[in-house]
Amino acid sequence: MNAGAALMPAVVDQAVRAHWDLELRLGGYAAAAHAAEQLDGVYGGIARLLGADPDEIALTENATVAWQLAFYSLPLRRGDRVLTGEAEYAANYVAYLQLRRRSGIEIDVVPSDAAGRLDVAALEAMIDDRVKLISVTWVPTNGGLVNPAAQIGRVAARHGVLYLLDACQAVGQMPVDVRELGCDILTGTGRKFLRGPRGTGLLYMRRDLLQRTEPAMIDHFSAPWTSLDDYTLRPDARRFETWENAYALRAGLGAAVGYALDLGLERIQASAWGAADRVRRGLRGIDGVQVLDLGERPCALVSFRLDDRPADEVVRAAERAGVVIGVSAPGSTLLDARRRALPVINRASPHYYTSQEDIDRLLDVVETLART
Amino acid sequence: MNAGAALMPAVVDQAVRAHWDLELRLGGYAAAAHAAEQLDGVYGGIARLLGADPDEIALTENATVAWQLAFYSLPLRRGDRVLTGEAEYAANYVAYLQLRRRSGIEIDVVPSDAAGRLDVAALEAMIDDRVKLISVTWVPTNGGLVNPAAQIGRVAARHGVLYLLDACQAVGQMPVDVRELGCDILTGTGRKFLRGPRGTGLLYMRRDLLQRTEPAMIDHFSAPWTSLDDYTLRPDARRFETWENAYALRAGLGAAVGYALDLGLERIQASAWGAADRVRRGLRGIDGVQVLDLGERPCALVSFRLDDRPADEVVRAAERAGVVIGVSAPGSTLLDARRRALPVINRASPHYYTSQEDIDRLLDVVETLART
Repeated sequence: MNAGAALMPAVVDQAVRAHWDLELRLGGYAAAAHAAEQLDGVYGGIARLLGADPDEIALTENATVAWQLAFYSLPLRRGDRVLTGEAEYAANYVAYLQLRRRSGIEIDVVPSDAAGRLDVAALEAMIDDRVKLISVTWVPTNGGLVNPAAQIGRVAARHGVLYLLDACQAVGQMPVDVRELGCDILTGTGRKFLRGPRGTGLLYMRRDLLQRTEPAMIDHFSAPWTSLDDYTLRPDARRFETWENAYALRAGLGAAVGYALDLGLERIQASAWGAADRVRRGLRGIDGVQVLDLGERPCALVSFRLDDRPADEVVRAAERAGVVIGVSAPGSTLLDARRRALPVINRASPHYYTSQEDIDRLLDVVETLART
Repeated sequence: MNAGAALMPAVVDQAVRAHWDLELRLGGYAAAAHAAEQLDGVYGGIARLLGADPDEIALTENATVAWQLAFYSLPLRRGDRVLTGEAEYAANYVAYLQLRRRSGIEIDVVPSDAAGRLDVAALEAMIDDRVKLISVTWVPTNGGLVNPAAQIGRVAARHGVLYLLDACQAVGQMPVDVRELGCDILTGTGRKFLRGPRGTGLLYMRRDLLQRTEPAMIDHFSAPWTSLDDYTLRPDARRFETWENAYALRAGLGAAVGYALDLGLERIQASAWGAADRVRRGLRGIDGVQVLDLGERPCALVSFRLDDRPADEVVRAAERAGVVIGVSAPGSTLLDARRRALPVINRASPHYYTSQEDIDRLLDVVETLART
């Protein structure tokens, strides 16, 4: 199973190695020139994956950097309100807190509905003229919850409010279509369900928004020095990039995206979510296990705890049985963890390549622990 | 020779491959945990390389990001003056221009002395109470100039002005000691004279400065979410990092640093600068060639032009002969290029591994072109 980062398929390994070997042989610049068409194609692949256009895509070091570059570039001022959800990811929430301290924005947390999802009716009721951004994590880090991203998008559109969607845990496990979602900005990572390399992230920004958004930081790639006293921002989303990049990793990301598109995101979702359902069902049958996923139809992240057993102990026992699972600490989703009084919990992320044997091994491990 | 990025030694290749293989086998998170000690050692290696302490080092995606994270985090306000040099790098200069537009800072360019170096006396004469930052490129991108970085540091210290040194082209080709340089901030890259992987950069920030500097952007790694309404910045320079990283590349950077330290930076400098001197001497002996390096004692970057021959043509001819050189466009150092009316010029970057045969081949290529 995945724990934070998925196993990479052979095509990703091959793409990274091929570019790396080229760099060893030719040097880094000549290698990038040699592979220019392939590297440029990564934007097209991601655009297809997200239902966007290639000029709306930027490649970044990771999902957090993609999110930061977008968020910190928005023109938020004193008194502006940012609406977010209870399961918001820590990386984003501390950025809100920083901007509150620095610029005097307000952070308002939309309550969850009975199923634990962001309550769309409550969101709509909270909107007034001061709300300048709806910023939500689609699939939170600490469990299987899938927030109603497209419904949130319709509320955002109805009220003309910018909508930033953190899709870090969604991209690669399910179909993503930015037009259908109605988001203005979407961020994602390569290393999770996409099965790409660590150190890769992606940013989508709607064309007309990016063209009026000046990045919070620029260099001569994003903004060429065109006269002694001025620069000219690039017209495309790469205005959020810098000149120097890890092209071997980008080649791997491109291969991962191509692989996912070839398999088909509907098929991937059916298989990965099906595996997660089997994990959940098995866990629910074990005395002392509490499955903690919120939402009506949870995704391929399974969160649970076993009595008061330290989550690390479960991870180590699973590891000894050859199954990789992880933990989720309260500090990564502090609002939700406090509200539900969650300690450090376990998180298993089955994917379409997770076998029934792996699932059974995990269930055996937990069952054995539960009996001792 | 190098062109923007150096060839990587076998130890770098091996370190990257070893970590990559670990990621393929164990998954990205388990691999990082397995290699935790080695990965942590990268900070120590860089600290030794720069004469700093490990807690003063942050690892970044590239040198520009390191520079941006530092620069944009400084408390520069309307009317504050930033002093820089005529050969300043475009990436930095457009950031000054952006901050001038956004915050109303002033940019003042220190003139060069007769040898083409930043004029330290002129710098000191320009300082007043409004000068809040001296920000200089040590070795500019477009030639062999070595700015008097340590003398600038003494001026900065005398007047209590912050000093940001862009050492992107310096680190790895010569000894660097941040205490001797007197800089508060220093940025560098892995891929150039250090012979590390593309997609690696480094940031040094003096401890007492970093501890009172809030990064322009934060996440839950740089600033853990410690209470519902607040975050706590990390006490070390990693407050400028984000949670997710390309660990395989970091492992390679660590190997590159270790390799350079083992060879010794004095020896590297003697060898690389000696090779560059031989290139310059040879080029000066060819009719129609103009060597463009400024300064009294140029380093291992050799800039030149051949009559009105397009620089690209020289690059391609050298490539056919098996020698990699590059170009430097006016837009990368616009002030200097305008002042000296430079077109796109050629740049060769011999290193300690550049053989006399390579040098002779390059000189042959240029000589042949000069005759036709």
